[in-house]
Amino acid sequence: MDMKVIDLNCDMGESFGAYRLGYDEEILPYITSANIACGFHAGDAGTMRKTVKLAIANNVSIGAHPGLQDLIGFGRRKMDISPQEAYDIVVYQIGALGGFVQSEGGKLRHVKAHGELYNMAATNAKLAEAVAEAVYKVNPELILFGLAGGELLKAGKRIGLRTGSEVFSDRTYQSDGTLTSRREPDAMITDEQQALAQVIRMVKEGKVLTRQQVDIDIEAETICIHGDGIRALEFARTINQALTAAGITVQALQK
Amino acid sequence: MDMKVIDLNCDMGESFGAYRLGYDEEILPYITSANIACGFHAGDAGTMRKTVKLAIANNVSIGAHPGLQDLIGFGRRKMDISPQEAYDIVVYQIGALGGFVQSEGGKLRHVKAHGELYNMAATNAKLAEAVAEAVYKVNPELILFGLAGGELLKAGKRIGLRTGSEVFSDRTYQSDGTLTSRREPDAMITDEQQALAQVIRMVKEGKVLTRQQVDIDIEAETICIHGDGIRALEFARTINQALTAAGITVQALQK
Amino acid sequence: MDMKVIDLNCDMGESFGAYRLGYDEEILPYITSANIACGFHAGDAGTMRKTVKLAIANNVSIGAHPGLQDLIGFGRRKMDISPQEAYDIVVYQIGALGGFVQSEGGKLRHVKAHGELYNMAATNAKLAEAVAEAVYKVNPELILFGLAGGELLKAGKRIGLRTGSEVFSDRTYQSDGTLTSRREPDAMITDEQQALAQVIRMVKEGKVLTRQQVDIDIEAETICIHGDGIRALEFARTINQALTAAGITVQALQK
Amino acid sequence: MDMKVIDLNCDMGESFGAYRLGYDEEILPYITSANIACGFHAGDAGTMRKTVKLAIANNVSIGAHPGLQDLIGFGRRKMDISPQEAYDIVVYQIGALGGFVQSEGGKLRHVKAHGELYNMAATNAKLAEAVAEAVYKVNPELILFGLAGGELLKAGKRIGLRTGSEVFSDRTYQSDGTLTSRREPDAMITDEQQALAQVIRMVKEGKVLTRQQVDIDIEAETICIHGDGIRALEFARTINQALTAAGITVQALQK
Repeated sequence: MDMKVIDLNCDMGESFGAYRLGYDEEILPYITSANIACGFHAGDAGTMRKTVKLAIANNVSIGAHPGLQDLIGFGRRKMDISPQEAYDIVVYQIGALGGFVQSEGGKLRHVKAHGELYNMAATNAKLAEAVAEAVYKVNPELILFGLAGGELLKAGKRIGLRTGSEVFSDRTYQSDGTLTSRREPDAMITDEQQALAQVIRMVKEGKVLTRQQVDIDIEAETICIHGDGIRALEFARTINQALTAAGITVQALQK
Repeated sequence: MDMKVIDLNCDMGESFGAYRLGYDEEILPYITSANIACGFHAGDAGTMRKTVKLAIANNVSIGAHPGLQDLIGFGRRKMDISPQEAYDIVVYQIGALGGFVQSEGGKLRHVKAHGELYNMAATNAKLAEAVAEAVYKVNPELILFGLAGGELLKAGKRIGLRTGSEVFSDRTYQSDGTLTSRREPDAMITDEQQALAQVIRMVKEGKVLTRQQVDIDIEAETICIHGDGIRALEFARTINQALTAAGITVQALQK
Repeated sequence: MDMKVIDLNCDMGESFGAYRLGYDEEILPYITSANIACGFHAGDAGTMRKTVKLAIANNVSIGAHPGLQDLIGFGRRKMDISPQEAYDIVVYQIGALGGFVQSEGGKLRHVKAHGELYNMAATNAKLAEAVAEAVYKVNPELILFGLAGGELLKAGKRIGLRTGSEVFSDRTYQSDGTLTSRREPDAMITDEQQALAQVIRMVKEGKVLTRQQVDIDIEAETICIHGDGIRALEFARTINQALTAAGITVQALQK
Repeated sequence: MDMKVIDLNCDMGESFGAYRLGYDEEILPYITSANIACGFHAGDAGTMRKTVKLAIANNVSIGAHPGLQDLIGFGRRKMDISPQEAYDIVVYQIGALGGFVQSEGGKLRHVKAHGELYNMAATNAKLAEAVAEAVYKVNPELILFGLAGGELLKAGKRIGLRTGSEVFSDRTYQSDGTLTSRREPDAMITDEQQALAQVIRMVKEGKVLTRQQVDIDIEAETICIHGDGIRALEFARTINQALTAAGITVQALQK
């Protein structure tokens, strides 16, 4: 029997100063990897410390979640940064989170870029290479998360990193493997059962039915779930249970 | 014969984006420890990478130079931060610089707080303890620099860190061992020969003649020299030569 | 019969980017003056535009709410700024909010400093003078809010500004007219009826019973109510109704 | 005889905190319009105050120089901002500078967008419209500077603003009226005589010889000169004298 395993990852530590965001503490029991914001698009030093501590307490794998240096835009606005700039901000942010991981006695396991840095690294080969190199040079043992089939995973493999191919439960796919743009009407899967079915099939069969009604291959090593919004907590619980009920082991990626 | 050794340290990497500050490259050959700004009071990711690389190329010991989160004030304005906040910003900044030290294949050796964080940690025991703990928990092998006789050194020793007692060549001292406030007319020693003589005596005899014309004991393990201003480069060369000519070995602090 | 009037003011527009704070829209119907954050301690350009528009729609008097340049500390941490720096950041922030007031066709009526800038200007005569001068030089028609009996009001009157003497419903007072420090156990009045009674007496009789059980004179021209926290909205409604029921007219300060 | 007039504008006030940039004081005598940075891509409150004061003392026309909220990138990195965001940051920055213009007793005369905001507004009609509307709604008397022939000038005229058509002395033009990209080898005119000749012809004849060796029409109402770099000051003097010697009156644009 082929044992199926999957990682559930969620963005965490996105509060900033007096501003609170997300349900980190409540969601941690249902996920296996936490992507912790590093102070550029969200997060601050105190929030990072607390989130690292919480992740350790919940035995959840810790990852750095570097973003663009655009707090006001939450790292979601495309910025024309050079590969060198991408490299530099990724090294900085992995290092900064690494400080708290060391001080709390944990272990940094993975890196997942945030927002537009994630998107740009998935499609722009030069930025992908810069991000992969940054991760590798800080610590070649880190696992690099990226969009299934995207440029970042290719760059990560090329440089010798263990990668984590990420899929989305609540997004539809195009036949070329990319996500349907949010500007399209059917970009989001709002029906929970449909979202769960898509994810379970991606994990078990390695296939997804695209928006064009064609099956394509997709590698699902980690599933991204969202940590904000009132339904986030409930969905975290539901997807964890649905995966387990389908005979899939939910656990963090292993190096 | 008692071999005398001293470390020469200088703040570095204080450029930011389009803004250039300091003569890092020119001064590096004359110093043995570089305190590299970490992006809070000065510095940015790209500057940190370049400065770490330069320090390695010059075989100069690398230190993190964390400051208050006040770029516009260059970390020189007293801020009423809590010990927890001091702890957090120090861990964050050591970590961030550590990222570049790892990616460039160097070794982080020491930590010296910047500006008002340095001053507050020298006089406020609780902040001192928080800063020392931050350094220790990130890496107990780091050497903690601090004002000779100040609270930070005491806190560092208490927690088990190797400390570096810092003296100033161009400042006058009070009989209680503190620096004369810059608001006083004779806070600065502007005569170069007098500055050199003070420093050599501190290193060789462990004594300094205070502003009150009383000799006090002072431990000199590292001398702070300044990296900005047009005369900085020349003074770096002069003090290095004067110390050497006085039979003192200029070298980085050893753990 | 002596007609009593009072202004009810509340801090507004404290959201920032993806971060939401406060119940501005819900509270606006119950207040008469909105102090709108200007982007230093909180707020951003888009939030300022929306908040100005909301205040105009609710016929609420618009004020600038300048704070220290410390977003991460929400302007609540004491910073050792010079009078010149205080002057500059106040001019900048009044101007910035003024841009939106002009573009939305409103009128800027008052200025209330935020957090530690408010506190420092209440007790430090030089900072008070700098803040008052900043307000006066941008527009001498602006009304300057400040702590009843504090330095800022004195400075404002001296320079020729119309001032607004501010009182707090939920804080206890010392016999010297200052607020009891929040570090003291009885700094806050948690009983709603007691808070309302204190405020009504301050408005009607110009007196407050201090923590030392002594009556002192106090000038109440505007009452500060809080806009965050779950009970804020309800208290806004309650205090507005209680004041009206006590025969007090709730209206914005008139120049 | 047809009297020819031209405005000479220069970016100013780009220092930030401890960082100094540009030769504002020295260049002001040779220009007629100062574009003053507003704290987003460069500049800070104190610098704005000093620069406004200097401009008034030199009888130079004062303009706001709003940029993208990207201090680390000096506003030179393309960011995917929405028209609403462009509108908001322009209103904010004009307002902020307006505060200092009011407090110093001057008059705000024009607005020129900085860096990538300038470039994007020259080519993207929706951003152009948003920027023009922001300027108009803050103050319809302001003059809107923009690239000769670009979208921003069109949007400004449509909404009813007086516009200032800007040309460059040191850049080559394409036959469609755009500037040759800096990525091309002959984007810059490095020969000073050639630069002066191009500018004088643009002013006198309204024509420029493009890189494709074709003459095109160009409207020259204001010339951009640069304020940083060691040769900036000398070029400011030279171009001012050359224009005057060619019988052209150098003066600020009139509403």
